[in-house]
Amino acid sequence: MSRKLYSLCGTDRARPFSPHVWKTKLSLAHKGLEFDVVPVGFTEIPKVEEGATRLVPLLRDGDRLVQDSFSIAVYLEENYPDRPSLFGGSGGVAMARFVEGWSQTTLHPAIARIIITDIHDSLDPVDRVYFRESREVRFGTSLEAVAETGRAALATFAEKLEPLRHMLKFQPYFGGELPLFADYIVFGALQWARIVSPQRLLSPGDPVTDWFERCLDLHDGIGRSVTAA
Amino acid sequence: MSRKLYSLCGTDRARPFSPHVWKTKLSLAHKGLEFDVVPVGFTEIPKVEEGATRLVPLLRDGDRLVQDSFSIAVYLEENYPDRPSLFGGSGGVAMARFVEGWSQTTLHPAIARIIITDIHDSLDPVDRVYFRESREVRFGTSLEAVAETGRAALATFAEKLEPLRHMLKFQPYFGGELPLFADYIVFGALQWARIVSPQRLLSPGDPVTDWFERCLDLHDGIGRSVTAA
Repeated sequence: MSRKLYSLCGTDRARPFSPHVWKTKLSLAHKGLEFDVVPVGFTEIPKVEEGATRLVPLLRDGDRLVQDSFSIAVYLEENYPDRPSLFGGSGGVAMARFVEGWSQTTLHPAIARIIITDIHDSLDPVDRVYFRESREVRFGTSLEAVAETGRAALATFAEKLEPLRHMLKFQPYFGGELPLFADYIVFGALQWARIVSPQRLLSPGDPVTDWFERCLDLHDGIGRSVTAA
Repeated sequence: MSRKLYSLCGTDRARPFSPHVWKTKLSLAHKGLEFDVVPVGFTEIPKVEEGATRLVPLLRDGDRLVQDSFSIAVYLEENYPDRPSLFGGSGGVAMARFVEGWSQTTLHPAIARIIITDIHDSLDPVDRVYFRESREVRFGTSLEAVAETGRAALATFAEKLEPLRHMLKFQPYFGGELPLFADYIVFGALQWARIVSPQRLLSPGDPVTDWFERCLDLHDGIGRSVTAA
């Protein structure tokens, strides 16, 4: 197939966990586009496609190479306009950037702390070394110290989801009656935790849990095709 | 004029401060629709339009009466489709609900605590009694105790704006290159504080401050038409 999605994984190459790659998987499925997944470890990323990227997702679509989950979604919207829309118009593209901002600055830092040890332990030895070194620089402390702060982050995680609960009083998806890319942005963050960590960030009975379960069912259950850790 | 907007005010009827009414003022201006403002105190609201509402904004548009800022924006979008769009498509309507959720659950609780004494002090005596009683029930403690928690809320307020800062790296408005109703949602929250309180929630040099200043300039500076406290 001419469409390839480079996807981050650990030792088990059938359990891709990158939140950003999951956004793109759902985006491609939303557009009804088939693709092959190419699993790569952290240290393999700079070697693919002649050094095209240091980050995944990276999409090869025929002779086009596109990176970054948001850019890929915009690319798919522009290049496959006759397929279901990922944004629902120009306002939807613009506001998806705010949803990304919320996910990146509110959810990701908390989830990263909560699951940091689980990510580390899922990796190949060579990637464990890379992960520890790069994350200890990023956080300015040891992985173990970051994990310690993850306990408090887990205890307060449910509070961070209040904006989403407000929205779910009015509609079942960020996209309204049907999902859009904004749903996949937040789904990706929670799917990352679901696949890599046995810790549970969502509780039964929470409307956010119900929304997440709906997302797992989308597009023939592509999100559910990888089991929870 | 047949278009009337009921607007909350304190003793100074030229300084309407309701965040939700500001959303509607900007929405009407965005659509290029003229309107008269009818200032009302808290305890006058249940008396207008034969008891139509307990909350503002309330819009009388000819023979139509519409309440709630989001519902009014949707009403304007549907009834004045040839004017500039407030949402930029169906995705924009849906995602504006999430922006509302973020504003209501993250910004409003903090701002309410920060400015609660300032609001109280701006009211007519009869409204001060109503405000104190209703807010002490809502918060489960005295106004003074709420105001005390407002100091911590002010100290951490800037952190809450991180999702917006992320978005502003990519575009000047929630709406993209131009503002949409989602901008007015968040503008309303900050305009509430600007008008009623001498405390400053935004700092010079912050991209959020620059965005807020741009919003104050919109539509012939309607936001700036009321000076900062």
